[in-house]
Amino acid sequence: MNEADTVVDAAALRRFVADVLEAVGMAADDAAIAADVLVTADLRGHESHGVARVERYYVRPMQSGQIRARASLVTLRETAATLVLDAQNGMGHPAAKRAMDLCIAKAREAGTCVAVIRRSNHYGIAGYYPLLAAAHDMIGVCSTTAGTLVVPTGGRNALLGTNPIAFAAPAGRHRPFMLDMATSVVPVGKVEVKARRGEPLPLGWAVDEQGQPTADAQAVLDHVHDGVLVGGGLVPLGGLEAGHKGYGLAAMVDILCGLLAGAQASVRLSEHMRCGEDADVGHLVAAMDIAAFAPVEEFKQAMDDYIDVLHAAPPAPGTDRVLVAGDPEFETEQRRERDGIPLHHGVRESLQRLGRELGVPSPPGI
Amino acid sequence: MNEADTVVDAAALRRFVADVLEAVGMAADDAAIAADVLVTADLRGHESHGVARVERYYVRPMQSGQIRARASLVTLRETAATLVLDAQNGMGHPAAKRAMDLCIAKAREAGTCVAVIRRSNHYGIAGYYPLLAAAHDMIGVCSTTAGTLVVPTGGRNALLGTNPIAFAAPAGRHRPFMLDMATSVVPVGKVEVKARRGEPLPLGWAVDEQGQPTADAQAVLDHVHDGVLVGGGLVPLGGLEAGHKGYGLAAMVDILCGLLAGAQASVRLSEHMRCGEDADVGHLVAAMDIAAFAPVEEFKQAMDDYIDVLHAAPPAPGTDRVLVAGDPEFETEQRRERDGIPLHHGVRESLQRLGRELGVPSPPGI
Repeated sequence: MNEADTVVDAAALRRFVADVLEAVGMAADDAAIAADVLVTADLRGHESHGVARVERYYVRPMQSGQIRARASLVTLRETAATLVLDAQNGMGHPAAKRAMDLCIAKAREAGTCVAVIRRSNHYGIAGYYPLLAAAHDMIGVCSTTAGTLVVPTGGRNALLGTNPIAFAAPAGRHRPFMLDMATSVVPVGKVEVKARRGEPLPLGWAVDEQGQPTADAQAVLDHVHDGVLVGGGLVPLGGLEAGHKGYGLAAMVDILCGLLAGAQASVRLSEHMRCGEDADVGHLVAAMDIAAFAPVEEFKQAMDDYIDVLHAAPPAPGTDRVLVAGDPEFETEQRRERDGIPLHHGVRESLQRLGRELGVPSPPGI
Repeated sequence: MNEADTVVDAAALRRFVADVLEAVGMAADDAAIAADVLVTADLRGHESHGVARVERYYVRPMQSGQIRARASLVTLRETAATLVLDAQNGMGHPAAKRAMDLCIAKAREAGTCVAVIRRSNHYGIAGYYPLLAAAHDMIGVCSTTAGTLVVPTGGRNALLGTNPIAFAAPAGRHRPFMLDMATSVVPVGKVEVKARRGEPLPLGWAVDEQGQPTADAQAVLDHVHDGVLVGGGLVPLGGLEAGHKGYGLAAMVDILCGLLAGAQASVRLSEHMRCGEDADVGHLVAAMDIAAFAPVEEFKQAMDDYIDVLHAAPPAPGTDRVLVAGDPEFETEQRRERDGIPLHHGVRESLQRLGRELGVPSPPGI
């Protein structure tokens, strides 16, 4: 983060963002949830999904009415172990958080629960929500449709989102195992970084409008930001060799979070947003109660042993150590909780602007 | 399949394999299930997981007692929407098939069901089992631990299996969407083909004992077949660029199918098998009843529309068309149901040998 020019305390930033979101009309408890998800992204080093998005992704759309600031989560269908929920075009963060809370309660009775959510919006980092389940000694799963950015194998137009898959399982001595991955080779944020630095893309990250590998970061972004499907976009996980697997995973996410939820598949999302319609983003959250499967302490011990085996693996030359999913995020989180969150100057300016406009006092560092 | 020297009718092959498996002690209904899974693999073009394995993976281990020919599936724990099952060191195919049947019945009541199975063995293609759910208008999921072949990102020893993820969802006019993918760049079968042809591996499929990319197919196989973790192995999905994602997915599968099931993680599988212990392979199967989420016909219509959009995508130059997960398998299946299944001469010899030894008459073509 050598482009940062300021550092902000996490708790102060959380309070500030919550106040900003409340000032544009969100209920206080919903605003607090959204702020926590966003600041957690910055704490974990996922700046692309953090407070950098407050203005453009959330405040302006709520002000224009594209996203409803005040919306409750409505249950449309329910069985012992399933839920179909309607976010009523509200913010995605409180919808997904409350959906996971409902799942956790139902999984305590039925052993597991799957909830799908329709008519939602961006919910930030997918990895936030499974950890809510892990804190209740459950395994958590979360996924979402996403803007149309990814080109199916053999094609040349973006028809899929980066459709992330997130999964968490609690351990004992160790932090939970936490996987949070886009089903593309890279998320679009990494292309943005390359473009900002004027660097070429490694071949295999993206294709042009002919479906051929491209190194031109700016051309990919021009396409993305226009949201017009003229062609080109990100390559699914697996790249030029095995991209059909990432394509398959992205389509699986579309089926679960889009079609099964009664929401749009990713192929319609950018068009919806461009035309000012409700985005109709869909999510899936699920919880599995470990106690339904095994004694919780035995499972946690097995998790610790498993993580120990991976951590003890001899590294390849040039590598420090073998990491486990979640390690880099938790290490960054611990450091930034202590030392503060670095903010890029553009992000700082955006937050200053929002504070001034909405009459929310900025904390030190903004 | 230009190495084939014979063609066999699918129904006759299914009958023959079932008879062979029954002759070594399996119950008739279990033998029929295993034979159907194996021949379905050949029908779909996954020869590496088909009847080529009957002798080495199943008949010899049942004869030596390493796999129990006669074993029932025992329920250890049960809630409204979960099952913990013990396969008692029997064959994996009937265990996973029966587990999915139980899941489907419970999902009809609870909306969804997750079953984990411990003390099992190889179950063939993962993609067989989710389609059982799709045939009942449910979404199916299936996964399994697998022999220790895959090197975690940054490491140099194999500590993970190819740990596949399989998923199926029913459509209306179209065949179901069916994803069945190893979480490594390629399954080991593709390395075997390269070695047989004396061709180098594309860089990014495998690493050597220093964790460096290797083109030496035979060296990878020598390691694999010894089952000794001297180092090297397959690279997780995502390859040299984004292999941490495939590594994360493989570990997720280990957590669900190994730790949560009370079975071994993949890191112990090859060691167990080498030492003549029960393999203790673990599986997970799950079913989600579409009717719990949406009107079934609406969902199937949405699936058809979704598949149509992908099929209609303009292909990149040099590509015929954009495929959907399952398309190549179903097309091969249709052709081989009609024209017969081509058998490699080595596979034919193996089946002839089993027929002679066990007194099972061979069908035409074997």
